[in-house]
Amino acid sequence: MNNIPTKANIELTHQRIQNYIHRTPILTSKSINKIFHSRLYFKCENFQRAGAFKMRGATNAILSLSENELSKGVATHSSGNHAGALALAAQTLNISAYIAMPSNAPEIKIKAVEGYGGKITFCKPTLDDREMTLNRIVEDTGATFIHPYDDYRTIAGQATCAKEIFEELKEVDYLLTPLGGGGLLSGSSLSTNYFSSSTKVIGIEPKGADDAYRSIRDDKIYPSIGPKTIADGLLTSLSKKTFNIIKDNVSEIITVEEQTILDAMYLIWERMKIVIEPSSATVLAAVMENQDQFRNKTITLILSGGNVDIKKFHA
Amino acid sequence: MNNIPTKANIELTHQRIQNYIHRTPILTSKSINKIFHSRLYFKCENFQRAGAFKMRGATNAILSLSENELSKGVATHSSGNHAGALALAAQTLNISAYIAMPSNAPEIKIKAVEGYGGKITFCKPTLDDREMTLNRIVEDTGATFIHPYDDYRTIAGQATCAKEIFEELKEVDYLLTPLGGGGLLSGSSLSTNYFSSSTKVIGIEPKGADDAYRSIRDDKIYPSIGPKTIADGLLTSLSKKTFNIIKDNVSEIITVEEQTILDAMYLIWERMKIVIEPSSATVLAAVMENQDQFRNKTITLILSGGNVDIKKFHA
Repeated sequence: MNNIPTKANIELTHQRIQNYIHRTPILTSKSINKIFHSRLYFKCENFQRAGAFKMRGATNAILSLSENELSKGVATHSSGNHAGALALAAQTLNISAYIAMPSNAPEIKIKAVEGYGGKITFCKPTLDDREMTLNRIVEDTGATFIHPYDDYRTIAGQATCAKEIFEELKEVDYLLTPLGGGGLLSGSSLSTNYFSSSTKVIGIEPKGADDAYRSIRDDKIYPSIGPKTIADGLLTSLSKKTFNIIKDNVSEIITVEEQTILDAMYLIWERMKIVIEPSSATVLAAVMENQDQFRNKTITLILSGGNVDIKKFHA
Repeated sequence: MNNIPTKANIELTHQRIQNYIHRTPILTSKSINKIFHSRLYFKCENFQRAGAFKMRGATNAILSLSENELSKGVATHSSGNHAGALALAAQTLNISAYIAMPSNAPEIKIKAVEGYGGKITFCKPTLDDREMTLNRIVEDTGATFIHPYDDYRTIAGQATCAKEIFEELKEVDYLLTPLGGGGLLSGSSLSTNYFSSSTKVIGIEPKGADDAYRSIRDDKIYPSIGPKTIADGLLTSLSKKTFNIIKDNVSEIITVEEQTILDAMYLIWERMKIVIEPSSATVLAAVMENQDQFRNKTITLILSGGNVDIKKFHA
């Protein structure tokens, strides 16, 4: 796939991956609606296979490979949800997944990749060493590198999440998604364009990792240097592909404070009884910090994942 | 209702309350099934209104009152889920709820009762003072006392949970429920008897609060004296009504260790991405500690509630 995914591309992608992913539920909470005087619909990708929306893009990327490519497997470097999703998607489709992981990756993420049968090569926790390690793996095995977001196949996969939302909900004022590398946001903005064009799409970024906010504002991609946020899924910078789609299809980027992210996460745990990771909480944090903008609106919020070591968080 | 609920009673109860409660989902986890080599189905009462199965019994008890009784409201003493459920059921049905709460009740429970419009009278944290305070409320207001479990109306309400399970699942080997005062277990055992008679019902109790285990073993009700467990919903002792039903309809009581309860709670948070309270985790703890008994079986487990201050738990 060498061009920005079309409506037909996304429809085909959805058909192709649907037997390998969960159609996640959309949940509501009366008590949270009451607090914000709005109608909030939470799309629960924390219940997605491997615990995050990344399963959609990883599955689609693998299903796009030729038989020859499939036989050699796939590879990526990641310490996060893309690694787990790629490993599980590969296991499901009976091919090999090679993952370069930094040696300081959280135990829980390493175990997840191992549990899904991924073959881990540890590297130093620098981007340089991750890329070098990945290149060596690709040379040795012939595996195809699957980028977590700078890839139209991945983006088309992530786009199916918003497509599912608009199959169930009409007359939606806003769609809010977390924003890291921009795979989920760019895919979501394409689907919104195709399936619910009157809905405004907003990307939410932690203030401590606001490279995308600045990139869109200044119309040039800033790298994410030394990001500081609890939202560990949102540390990466935009890529050329995600930047261009977001620029044309997203109406606003909102940044949120760390404390609001925590407050939003606790509120969702407490009221909705579901486990979400900090990155997911950014979307409700944006509503918390901008109550006038969202009052009396119909808002869909993508809870991007649920992979969090809850025991780490205490009062 | 002056007799043990019949099949017809429970069917009528379910019809009567169904517009006021959620039909909660039954969830499964491939990875948890794999660990225990069994088929586990979790009935998610943590998603019930007010966050616990107690909403079923409280709603049914209120709907059983006369117009005259309704006009005077309902009352109870509780520091737990019954208080919140009774307050929310009363609010939903537009009557008053008076709750005697010990002054040391957790902030989170007090706020829940207040949020549901319950009228709280604080008392000393002794059973004597709770009962005295309750009696005074009942004298002053004419409200009807709704016991959390020693009441066939409450028991018939709790029975609807297992009824829903057996409407969706057939050929179930075991039904496991947490065991405190016995309302959920006795109701579940009646429904199992009526709707899935080949299924064995097992009640699960923390070892540190094993009064019901000893009561059934010795055929006499022991009071729960100084129970020590993290499962704060399971501190109470059996009542005459619950004891008699359990004695005749439950095949076994299993007790579990504190550490296993914690391990089971974390496993459910991590793998299923849902928030459950410690009392709910006892049922999976029982499977963990008795893997031979449950291997290759079809087991339904009632997750009784999700009202927990997650921030309290840390590694």
